[in-house]
Amino acid sequence: MKTFIGVDLGGTNVRAAVVKEDGTILCMNKDESHPEKGAEAVMKTMISLIKGLDGYENCKGIGMGIPGPIDTVHGKIIVSTNLPKLIGFPIVDYMKDYFRKPVRIDNDVKAAALGEAVLGSGKGYPIVYYVTISTGIGGALVIDRKVVSGQNGHAGEIGNICIDRNRKKYNILNVGAVENEASGTALTRKGRELFSDTIFDAGDVFELARAGNERAIKLVDEMAYDLAMMFCAVGHVIDPHVFVVGGGVMKGKDVFFEKMERYYRSMIHEGMQKVVFKEALLEEPGIVGAAMLVREL
Amino acid sequence: MKTFIGVDLGGTNVRAAVVKEDGTILCMNKDESHPEKGAEAVMKTMISLIKGLDGYENCKGIGMGIPGPIDTVHGKIIVSTNLPKLIGFPIVDYMKDYFRKPVRIDNDVKAAALGEAVLGSGKGYPIVYYVTISTGIGGALVIDRKVVSGQNGHAGEIGNICIDRNRKKYNILNVGAVENEASGTALTRKGRELFSDTIFDAGDVFELARAGNERAIKLVDEMAYDLAMMFCAVGHVIDPHVFVVGGGVMKGKDVFFEKMERYYRSMIHEGMQKVVFKEALLEEPGIVGAAMLVREL
Repeated sequence: MKTFIGVDLGGTNVRAAVVKEDGTILCMNKDESHPEKGAEAVMKTMISLIKGLDGYENCKGIGMGIPGPIDTVHGKIIVSTNLPKLIGFPIVDYMKDYFRKPVRIDNDVKAAALGEAVLGSGKGYPIVYYVTISTGIGGALVIDRKVVSGQNGHAGEIGNICIDRNRKKYNILNVGAVENEASGTALTRKGRELFSDTIFDAGDVFELARAGNERAIKLVDEMAYDLAMMFCAVGHVIDPHVFVVGGGVMKGKDVFFEKMERYYRSMIHEGMQKVVFKEALLEEPGIVGAAMLVREL
Repeated sequence: MKTFIGVDLGGTNVRAAVVKEDGTILCMNKDESHPEKGAEAVMKTMISLIKGLDGYENCKGIGMGIPGPIDTVHGKIIVSTNLPKLIGFPIVDYMKDYFRKPVRIDNDVKAAALGEAVLGSGKGYPIVYYVTISTGIGGALVIDRKVVSGQNGHAGEIGNICIDRNRKKYNILNVGAVENEASGTALTRKGRELFSDTIFDAGDVFELARAGNERAIKLVDEMAYDLAMMFCAVGHVIDPHVFVVGGGVMKGKDVFFEKMERYYRSMIHEGMQKVVFKEALLEEPGIVGAAMLVREL
């Protein structure tokens, strides 16, 4: 069975793994990424991580998932808050020159989406829409096992979709952007407004809802509705076979997921009801998905 | 140069044409469709229309555009208000058996989108998003000259996207569905609410706005904003290279189009600004696009 190298490069850590084509991780190495030291230093860290992996020489290629919009054609980072010194650096060319193997990079959410589409909950479906609900909200479209990145790598920046124009402006995102209204961060903020400092994260709000607290239940209900509005926008554009939902907020799936799906189904045409909602399946979608970026090269 | 047959089948009329691969229409025939007579009768009308076209024998295939969601895989109509007796009828198989040529059908908006993507304003762009604003609002995604139809043929039913949850419920569409708030029909309704019976269609509202009527200008401005909200949802899902906009409402493009684009650009990430807005170009996008459905068979 073929093997590939998957790399998950973040602002704090970088991980590299040898991944079999069935998604099994054979071995993994991890180091701090230290992006403040500049692009070459980060490349060297990645190279030594990869060279430390048993069997790396036999891997067919290297796939990398990186936060922020990625220029997949030229193999560069377009914009990054976590890795500013790597913007514009020819990551793919550099790694290709060193390892003499095919190299591809894409946004980390898109890599995770590909992992889920090829090997996880989206396996077997022609059109997979992956959504991650965590501190932020992001999405990715995978058609016939290929990620649609958009002109500027921004396809899937669905956190900026407005789900209600009568909300507050918080940051650079749109007024009523779903990321500001229904992400883990948003639920934490709203929870604190209601319950003050007893709330540390979204999990605390879910816990209150589980315990039957009426105001917490209402908060979660509103979040489910706001998320459904976003899914409604995505659904009418793409009409996917499956929505695969991942991210930390799924820890509260028992209190919001069914509600969200029910609201969604009330907002779409009858002919679209065949769509399925699934929870993301892979333990390591990012690194497995990154490896899948080079599976067909 | 290769030629194809394009068919535009509607509830009132059916048209068939011989189309060159550069989009030139060589000849066209038209008849009433009489869908109330049943599927076989409509097929026979189409067959005699096609056989009346000079050079039909040498055409490489037959492409058909039909309103409503289409099962492109099995070549059938899924749902139709105009052609109810044709629902489920094996149109593609029937025509293929008769003509012994490749046959494909798709939704008429998607056929038009393909025409614009291959030969019109979208020519040369990898990701084209086509929007028609007319009595209704519809859209279609074309990636690398292929239409993305979605699981149920409903990809592009963007008229049902909610652009403001605080509006009235009018019909089966969502509260605040953009089709009920910013289509030609919506603008006519709103114009009548303001100016009573002096308004017959959206063109009358545009005319008042052109003449400097403040209330009409405000109405058009609100329409431009509502449309921008819809484009914003589509843009964050797809991040296309170009939006191609067609439909009867484009007759008022001088009063709303630039405003709409400006609002849109205020709602998207900086990295997405490279997108271009263009007016649809083809005189007969539906029939030319239908012919393009079979260009690669």
